Amino acid sequence: MSISANAVADAVVAPPSALSPEGVRDARLRLAGRVARTPLVRSDELDRAAGARLWLKAENLQRGGSFKMRGALLAVDRLACSGSVGVVAQSTGNHAIAVALAAARHGLPAVLVLPVDAAGTKVRRIQEAGARVVRAGTTLAERIAVVEELKHAHGLDEIDPYQNPDVVLGQATATEDLLHQVREAEGHLDALVLPVGGGSALAGACLAATGRDVDVYGAEPLAVPALTAALRAGGPVTVDARPTIADGLRPDRIGRLPYDLAHDRVAGVYTIEEEAIAEALRLVLVHARLVVEPAAATAVAGALRLAADGRARDIGVLVSGGNVEPRLVASLLDGQPTDLPQERQS
Amino acid sequence: MSISANAVADAVVAPPSALSPEGVRDARLRLAGRVARTPLVRSDELDRAAGARLWLKAENLQRGGSFKMRGALLAVDRLACSGSVGVVAQSTGNHAIAVALAAARHGLPAVLVLPVDAAGTKVRRIQEAGARVVRAGTTLAERIAVVEELKHAHGLDEIDPYQNPDVVLGQATATEDLLHQVREAEGHLDALVLPVGGGSALAGACLAATGRDVDVYGAEPLAVPALTAALRAGGPVTVDARPTIADGLRPDRIGRLPYDLAHDRVAGVYTIEEEAIAEALRLVLVHARLVVEPAAATAVAGALRLAADGRARDIGVLVSGGNVEPRLVASLLDGQPTDLPQERQS
Repeated sequence: MSISANAVADAVVAPPSALSPEGVRDARLRLAGRVARTPLVRSDELDRAAGARLWLKAENLQRGGSFKMRGALLAVDRLACSGSVGVVAQSTGNHAIAVALAAARHGLPAVLVLPVDAAGTKVRRIQEAGARVVRAGTTLAERIAVVEELKHAHGLDEIDPYQNPDVVLGQATATEDLLHQVREAEGHLDALVLPVGGGSALAGACLAATGRDVDVYGAEPLAVPALTAALRAGGPVTVDARPTIADGLRPDRIGRLPYDLAHDRVAGVYTIEEEAIAEALRLVLVHARLVVEPAAATAVAGALRLAADGRARDIGVLVSGGNVEPRLVASLLDGQPTDLPQERQS
Repeated sequence: MSISANAVADAVVAPPSALSPEGVRDARLRLAGRVARTPLVRSDELDRAAGARLWLKAENLQRGGSFKMRGALLAVDRLACSGSVGVVAQSTGNHAIAVALAAARHGLPAVLVLPVDAAGTKVRRIQEAGARVVRAGTTLAERIAVVEELKHAHGLDEIDPYQNPDVVLGQATATEDLLHQVREAEGHLDALVLPVGGGSALAGACLAATGRDVDVYGAEPLAVPALTAALRAGGPVTVDARPTIADGLRPDRIGRLPYDLAHDRVAGVYTIEEEAIAEALRLVLVHARLVVEPAAATAVAGALRLAADGRARDIGVLVSGGNVEPRLVASLLDGQPTDLPQERQS
């Protein structure tokens, strides 16, 4: 696809790093009409199971199947308009799909670096968008090393999933939308729950919620407690990641930028056991009739814990994506023991 | 729950049987804020698979898990305000869930008559709403006989799923919403596809689409070709129903009222093989990330056929419900042969 006149104009006027609530509102305007206005899904049955009102921001229905489309569009816009010859990014999957789709809109080549054991569904979606997939080890450090090589060998521009300000601003618009939609429905949120991998969703939510009376919580797999560890250590640290079905939350270290934006705003972090992730995914499938990936289910599980703790009655949840292996969904619905991936890190 | 003042006022002002486009618009106003404004879901991947643009009206996200909530609310409103002591209805499941929930809002007792082999998920939802479930045979005629008994024994008011004008008007508001939402998105539809069981969705769509330049198609299981047979015979006839996974489309005869409203407006009917229903359900799960029941998937399969025939580029589809057995979804996602119910009729 060719660059539209509007895309160029938007990218040119965008300030380079307005990491502020105003920046989020600008980002939302720039994305209007280019991303789906995903619904806020309510389910009486899910609310009954939770003992609270859950407001699910259904970004599994977003283009590319996740909220990461938002940040990728803004970041690729800027690079395309500054004469980039191509982009490269590392990702466990959804950021890669989003960058591939955004690059295709601008006719830019894209190379995506994924772990060797990335979800097959995600790899296929990247390839269908016309981008190149490179597989590199299983850890974040291994992927970053390959990105560095590709940058220098081919003159590609990197779009980091956690450190790029456009990406964080774009991801923030998902929460900004959610807050708008709750107000339109004349609701009021006590709390927001975001899934935490590298931290861009959480950082974006902290930006969008600035000045608003709502508590912001993270939810991460107990198997990869990178935010919990960072908050304890007073800065990002690499944790020993154990296997998790939440493939989107495998980064074993929080990004520096997300940490800086979130650490003194976040009200708490829930670490979620694998079985609780699986159970939340089942609940959302059966009661909210949405197909979600385990990363999104991790946030729902966090909301269930928050409700059980009696800390919130109205909880907004970022249902971050829906790119899940059909066989995993099948095994969870069948109530079979979760088929965990082999021991690995990310 | 008690009767709200608004519910009473609305029911009192509603004309008894305005089976017209104006009646549909009135019904939509009466339902505003009482049913979910379900989203119109688009999926680039699904469109690519279809070779057309599909606009999915996601009534699987409706209260009670199906569009039948709409008609049930209007019908129960009227009865509650005219001094009813309780309601009774026969159904293959979704109409029963909807009547149970609507009756609970008014504090009215409800008895629902289902086939002995009704989907367990549906039976549970009815019981959770506080209503009584009576099982009666497997055919429509058997259920109707039991409804007659219950009406006379207990003085209950019947809410027929096909013959009640409030029900048909309520179901019509799903298509009315869909058409509104397409206009809001600055789209234009060539065609609408509705799943056909007893015919209320199709009849409602024909009412809502009156005077609009859009073709209306039905889609029914090849195993229960009741609309095809009625159109051939020039009136409703009972067909020999074979087993189908589309439990919501098992009525073996089109209702007289739906037939009268639809027969000269409908542009065509697609009869869908079981494997095509299963494949459409898989496509919607994986590409549109929605959990839908086989009845809804039947309409999607109809849209795929319409697109393949080259008869429409933009197709609105009523995704009628999402009350599906988790194990059926699991077996479909696993690509296992569909586990058909035993030979039976409805």
